[in-house]
Amino acid sequence: MFSAELRSDTLKGLVNIISTLIDEVKFTITPEGMTLKAVDAAHVAMIEMVVTKAAFESFSAEDTEIGLDLEKVKGVLKLAGAGETIKMEQDDSTGKLVFKVGNITRRMSLIDTTGMNDPKVPQLSLTAKIAVPVEELQKGIRAVESISDHITLKAGPDFFELSCEGDTDSVSLKLDPSSAKIDTESEVCSMFPPDYLANIIKAIPSGTTVNIELDNDYPVKFVFALSDGAAGVNYLLAPRIESE
Amino acid sequence: MFSAELRSDTLKGLVNIISTLIDEVKFTITPEGMTLKAVDAAHVAMIEMVVTKAAFESFSAEDTEIGLDLEKVKGVLKLAGAGETIKMEQDDSTGKLVFKVGNITRRMSLIDTTGMNDPKVPQLSLTAKIAVPVEELQKGIRAVESISDHITLKAGPDFFELSCEGDTDSVSLKLDPSSAKIDTESEVCSMFPPDYLANIIKAIPSGTTVNIELDNDYPVKFVFALSDGAAGVNYLLAPRIESE
Amino acid sequence: MFSAELRSDTLKGLVNIISTLIDEVKFTITPEGMTLKAVDAAHVAMIEMVVTKAAFESFSAEDTEIGLDLEKVKGVLKLAGAGETIKMEQDDSTGKLVFKVGNITRRMSLIDTTGMNDPKVPQLSLTAKIAVPVEELQKGIRAVESISDHITLKAGPDFFELSCEGDTDSVSLKLDPSSAKIDTESEVCSMFPPDYLANIIKAIPSGTTVNIELDNDYPVKFVFALSDGAAGVNYLLAPRIESE
Repeated sequence: MFSAELRSDTLKGLVNIISTLIDEVKFTITPEGMTLKAVDAAHVAMIEMVVTKAAFESFSAEDTEIGLDLEKVKGVLKLAGAGETIKMEQDDSTGKLVFKVGNITRRMSLIDTTGMNDPKVPQLSLTAKIAVPVEELQKGIRAVESISDHITLKAGPDFFELSCEGDTDSVSLKLDPSSAKIDTESEVCSMFPPDYLANIIKAIPSGTTVNIELDNDYPVKFVFALSDGAAGVNYLLAPRIESE
Repeated sequence: MFSAELRSDTLKGLVNIISTLIDEVKFTITPEGMTLKAVDAAHVAMIEMVVTKAAFESFSAEDTEIGLDLEKVKGVLKLAGAGETIKMEQDDSTGKLVFKVGNITRRMSLIDTTGMNDPKVPQLSLTAKIAVPVEELQKGIRAVESISDHITLKAGPDFFELSCEGDTDSVSLKLDPSSAKIDTESEVCSMFPPDYLANIIKAIPSGTTVNIELDNDYPVKFVFALSDGAAGVNYLLAPRIESE
Repeated sequence: MFSAELRSDTLKGLVNIISTLIDEVKFTITPEGMTLKAVDAAHVAMIEMVVTKAAFESFSAEDTEIGLDLEKVKGVLKLAGAGETIKMEQDDSTGKLVFKVGNITRRMSLIDTTGMNDPKVPQLSLTAKIAVPVEELQKGIRAVESISDHITLKAGPDFFELSCEGDTDSVSLKLDPSSAKIDTESEVCSMFPPDYLANIIKAIPSGTTVNIELDNDYPVKFVFALSDGAAGVNYLLAPRIESE
């Protein structure tokens, strides 16, 4: 049994984040909310998402799993205005998920979740912690686009830098403690694939503070809240190690 | 002799509707206004349009016919702002139609209307009559897009439904008498090609009430006014009959 | 030594004009400002541009030359908001040009200007002088697009006309002294390639008065100011002579 109502922009925010990695997802549903763990096909990035009941207008569920094609869910989102409420209810007889938006009823077949195992999330303890408004990261991503095939993230006690070195040209965004909260004693630095980094950073809604955890040649972790804290995301991206 | 002035948005509204079906059209002109009867190349849909003198700022004509390439007329529309007046005058010496928009003069060769016969409009008496704001239909069309290769229109004494059934998924817009005026004693239902239906519904300006006439496995008729009632359109769309 | 600050919209205005002709340019820099002379690859059009110190927020330079890839400069412009200041400074050790926009630093390699000789600008004395708001020219250009492969500019004592004659259709924008200042005793007329004319006219910012100098089967000259008169442009376009 699963029945819930939520604002279309809440659903859109969640779908935007997840679909930077994958289109077919399994949500684990409990009476307290929904969770998701997913890794992309190339095993380069991983998302953990927790959506509590508080993100919904109404929520009533028993323990279950729901497999969704996010492309279809995006189709439903197009039918709703920004403030409009979307109802979702699982039809126990057919197993389909029924979306209602105003006068519109959309019956959606679910994806078989058999064999969709949750990825194992590595436990990492990363040296540097940085808190930065997503707008700064988005500015940095726009700046580095079209320069190079990797992006370097670097932090020291008094700076955080997103940079990119091409053959002849380079570009960097450098933040000092006036625009980013930085907590590290030593300097750390890792390189990342620009497309993954750009996709996730662009998908985070403006107004969000992103907590970055960084180390030397290690994955980077982005931790941020959605829906006024009613949903939380951990995003983990593998580094690109330069071979000499 | 033909000379007329009209607001660019009036002309745009007419052209948008007609060009859902065809690009080369013949207008029959009388001292009282213009009429058009046209059928698309596949003979699936038909438009009858009456534009009275009242739709024009000024109108002066003898009985004549004018053959227009609507793609060229769209080019003229791009030169005019929303409230701007477009003058049209047939040049008796060259036979061309001369458009004037502000300082711009556009001389357009006409299409030879010899052999462009008006299609015969079938007289239909259809059971169900529904009056519905076009915005509802437009919402329904957006909802059914990408689901299936046919759209079902259905009406009963207390509902009107636009729906679409795919192999695994389905979607429907269901209106009750609070949002549509419905006049039928029995339930009727026909299926239609989605592209035709989408094109005409999207071309009808918002704020328009569409009068729908529907029956079982019969053409559907859309009757609506443009230009505050100074122009009227009958649009007839053949059903798609499912063969078993 | 070269170091300057300017508003991003100033830089954008200059780049938009130049890049209608070429992407790789040489600026000649003096303590008083920058100048550029450039001709397109097909030798059909030529630009002379003078940007005085007054166009900059700050400007400090010795005599030098700077070779820029305008596509890269457009990338920098995307990083700046409309009112934001862009700093440029040549790094004496690497020879690169360093752009700073807020927290972003962009190091750009320069193009080797060896062998980039300034084109010789012909001295022309053209009969007719017309001063016209660029908006009128832009309206005319929109009108003639898709009609023909040449545009005629024509002026007489009491009119200026931009027109285009196709096989069956034609279009013209005709201005009288109420909307253009016209100074010529005889009628003059030349034809021009529409793509060049369209590109330069669309790139001129609205609010600009364009001084046109025209003659019979001769180049046309557009003279206009940018940045409130702190920069000036001469644009020369070769005529298309009809062979009989």
